[in-house]
Amino acid sequence: MKVEKISELTVNRLSVYLRCLNEMRARGDETVSSQALADRYNLNSAQIRKDLAYFGEFGVRGLGYNIDELRAHITKILGLDSPHRIGVVGAGNLGTALANYDGFSPQNFVVVGLFDSDPSKIGKRLPNGVAVSDIANFSLIAEQQKIDIAAIAVPARAAESVLDTILEAGVQAILNFAPLRLKGPPGVKIKHVDLLVSLEALSYFLAGPESAAPDAVLASEMDEAF
Amino acid sequence: MKVEKISELTVNRLSVYLRCLNEMRARGDETVSSQALADRYNLNSAQIRKDLAYFGEFGVRGLGYNIDELRAHITKILGLDSPHRIGVVGAGNLGTALANYDGFSPQNFVVVGLFDSDPSKIGKRLPNGVAVSDIANFSLIAEQQKIDIAAIAVPARAAESVLDTILEAGVQAILNFAPLRLKGPPGVKIKHVDLLVSLEALSYFLAGPESAAPDAVLASEMDEAF
Repeated sequence: MKVEKISELTVNRLSVYLRCLNEMRARGDETVSSQALADRYNLNSAQIRKDLAYFGEFGVRGLGYNIDELRAHITKILGLDSPHRIGVVGAGNLGTALANYDGFSPQNFVVVGLFDSDPSKIGKRLPNGVAVSDIANFSLIAEQQKIDIAAIAVPARAAESVLDTILEAGVQAILNFAPLRLKGPPGVKIKHVDLLVSLEALSYFLAGPESAAPDAVLASEMDEAF
Repeated sequence: MKVEKISELTVNRLSVYLRCLNEMRARGDETVSSQALADRYNLNSAQIRKDLAYFGEFGVRGLGYNIDELRAHITKILGLDSPHRIGVVGAGNLGTALANYDGFSPQNFVVVGLFDSDPSKIGKRLPNGVAVSDIANFSLIAEQQKIDIAAIAVPARAAESVLDTILEAGVQAILNFAPLRLKGPPGVKIKHVDLLVSLEALSYFLAGPESAAPDAVLASEMDEAF
């Protein structure tokens, strides 16, 4: 396997492939061809072959890929062979939704802390057992709970200060939901989940010349899947 | 201005530029160079020039771009010169967070409906005045309220059925938060907000060879900004 850097887009595609492969395995499938994978999940078969070839020869001509081997390999590449522990900062609706989200566990993400500065929220406990902690104790709890990913789910005005708190605690991977672009120092990775960008892409679709042209729309959807 | 289809990634970048320009204008700036825009917001100046040149000649050598002209133009390209009305399906934590989200209005997105099938939720009213309606009435309310974008914020098992309801109502632009890839017919645009893809990219970062190499991380962040 090559160890050079993979592009962010390739990483995102691997993530989607893994989801599809997990689902196929759960249905009892043992092998899959790139074409069958593409057909079933509305993906691009040539892109799948290109992405997977990058990591070595997996497929067997005529048989396709062994699903378990491929899942194990992608899992390792994505660093999902060891569990990640998430601290969510902001116990509003969004932060609470994240802390309650049940789609994480099977993929080795678990929310172990929820933080806020509002005294009326601190101490409350979610149905899944996660309690709201004082953000002032973030560093201490991050160390105790081995938090390696932090999610920022606070209003824009509080986001910079929350980022500082997270960085001081030594957490290097951050998922930001606040509607502004945060910048971290080298060695820190911040992923922005930007709802406005997605909504504005929908707005462009509704307004754009392509909305009248089905073929162009299909091309664009393929684009968007990755 | 060329009317050919712009790629999804370009649309996403325009969306980010617009946010930055709005912020600069709010601070009182009237012109900006691509380099200043890039420096301030951690963007790529060559990419900015390339993206904007695509829509015609905006910049004046030595002076840069007139911020108001550029904002007006990007606003029009993105279809943000007319308001969009959002219906959120799923009145759980995530749906409630979306319906309460205050980052939408200035950019002409307004949540006008929140829907659920749970009788204990139907009729409840959020602080901002949005009430929870019965999903059975989606089509009727979508027409009355002129909903043109629907957000799916329900568990995976309910997502396909909710998508059918939305499509039957004639809504063509959809933001999907459910953790599965939904496929719409031609002429319908579905944007997936996939938290696992973002988390798995962070996991890759934490596991990957690049996490030890600051330069590679910076390159990757630039990649990620778009």
